Amino acid sequence: MRILLIGASGTIGNAVREELADRHEFISAGRNGADVSVDITSPESIRAMYQTVGKVDAVVSTTGSTHFGSFLELTPENNEISIQSKLKGQVNLVLLGHHYVNDRGSFTLTSGIIMDDPIVGGTSSAMAGGALKAFVTSAAIEMPRGIRINSVSPNVVKESIKKYGPYFPGFEPVPVSRVALAFRKSVEGGQTGQTYTVY
Amino acid sequence: MRILLIGASGTIGNAVREELADRHEFISAGRNGADVSVDITSPESIRAMYQTVGKVDAVVSTTGSTHFGSFLELTPENNEISIQSKLKGQVNLVLLGHHYVNDRGSFTLTSGIIMDDPIVGGTSSAMAGGALKAFVTSAAIEMPRGIRINSVSPNVVKESIKKYGPYFPGFEPVPVSRVALAFRKSVEGGQTGQTYTVY
Ligand SMILES: NC(=O)c1ccc[n+]([C@@H]2O[C@H](COP(=O)([O-])OP(=O)(O)OC[C@H]3O[C@@H](n4cnc5c(N)ncnc54)[C@H](OP(=O)(O)O)[C@@H]3O)[C@@H](O)[C@H]2O)c1
Ligand SMILES: NC(=O)c1ccc[n+]([C@@H]2O[C@H](COP(=O)([O-])OP(=O)(O)OC[C@H]3O[C@@H](n4cnc5c(N)ncnc54)[C@H](OP(=O)(O)O)[C@@H]3O)[C@@H](O)[C@H]2O)c1
Repeated sequence: MRILLIGASGTIGNAVREELADRHEFISAGRNGADVSVDITSPESIRAMYQTVGKVDAVVSTTGSTHFGSFLELTPENNEISIQSKLKGQVNLVLLGHHYVNDRGSFTLTSGIIMDDPIVGGTSSAMAGGALKAFVTSAAIEMPRGIRINSVSPNVVKESIKKYGPYFPGFEPVPVSRVALAFRKSVEGGQTGQTYTVY
Repeated sequence: MRILLIGASGTIGNAVREELADRHEFISAGRNGADVSVDITSPESIRAMYQTVGKVDAVVSTTGSTHFGSFLELTPENNEISIQSKLKGQVNLVLLGHHYVNDRGSFTLTSGIIMDDPIVGGTSSAMAGGALKAFVTSAAIEMPRGIRINSVSPNVVKESIKKYGPYFPGFEPVPVSRVALAFRKSVEGGQTGQTYTVY
């Protein structure tokens, strides 16, 4: 398959590529140093990316920035970071991209455990994750031409523990290779409308 | 209790008021003909509402517009209707309002069944509902001064069947009075972080 991977240079993106690269062709996308440059917070940039890339069999998103911080300091303004990037960025990859996905192709988005198992400082990110889960459940029943759509909701991953560890006391980190398997299930399997939890 | 009800003139808002009015004082809010005028799509308008109203014991939101329509015609632009109103509008009622809620007071927001049980044309609204559910779960663990937060997820209500019926084939409509009970549970009960499904 020809797979467009947005967030390819990240911790999860790298692992997805490793899991799938021997059987598939990858086009990496991101803001810096990728095959094709894209900023998912801009619909124009997403449109330009798809025009450059053309038809693909799978779109995998392992990206999406969020605001982490105390709920008492959460404002309409900093909450916007999660809305623009993790939420709308990933949703718009689907809304603007389905024309570019071949029949029976797929989308796979990334949410995260904290929508189900809340942490202090995670409200904004959890909100985005919950939106993505419901979006995927719904979009699946109307996708054209047999295109499937799923999301993966990872626990905090071992390889990110330096960055996120303090936010996840008592959580049992999962190896990023386990998270990558869920992406493989979505891309190579036949299911749709699922959120694969890797907890 | 002193209850601020945003969306008071609507189908669900009216029923909530009827269920609770004999034991509580209500301040109604909405764009038209309410005690206090507010447009939840504007943070400035929300701020002005709270300044006018002052301290309350409960904030109940039975509002939030959404875009209904075929997934194939869903765009970043019309999806914005649900994001601005149902999603950010209700989230911002909480972010900008908790300073105005008395100790051990509460917020109650409204989502909807289609985040769990998808319908054709409902992706945008479902996305907003999923975001609200996760927002409530997370915000609950950080609310200051014992303030609680829940949401109510109604099935399509009998009294709205003329308006929404065609979107909900085979759904079993619930009387709006049952939905109002869930709001009473949230306002007068002691639970927090819950999404009460009235399905
Ligand atoms: N790591 C974890 O433990 C964990 C757990 C649960 C969920 N998640 C979720 O998984 C996703 C990826 O996490 P990660 O830890 O792998 O992230 P990461 O290592 O920080 O990588 C993020 C990737 O996304 C790209 N990116 C960031 N902003 C972008 C934008 N606006 N437009 C296009 N590309 C952008 C980055 O490349 P450029 O900077 O070059 O654009 C990079 O390739 C996020 O949604 C995160 O919330 C992560
Ligand atoms: N009815 C159902 O079957 C059903 C089922 C599941 C979920 N829901 C959800 O429940 C909520 C209420 O539904 P409903 O049927 O009761 O709605 P409705 O009858 O259309 O009433 C909406 C209420 O919200 C107010 N409103 C609308 N936009 C506003 C804005 N931007 N700022 C402030 N107030 C605004 C309206 O007053 P003004 O026009 O004067 O502002 C009105 O009071 C919605 O989130 C809906 O998605 C409804």
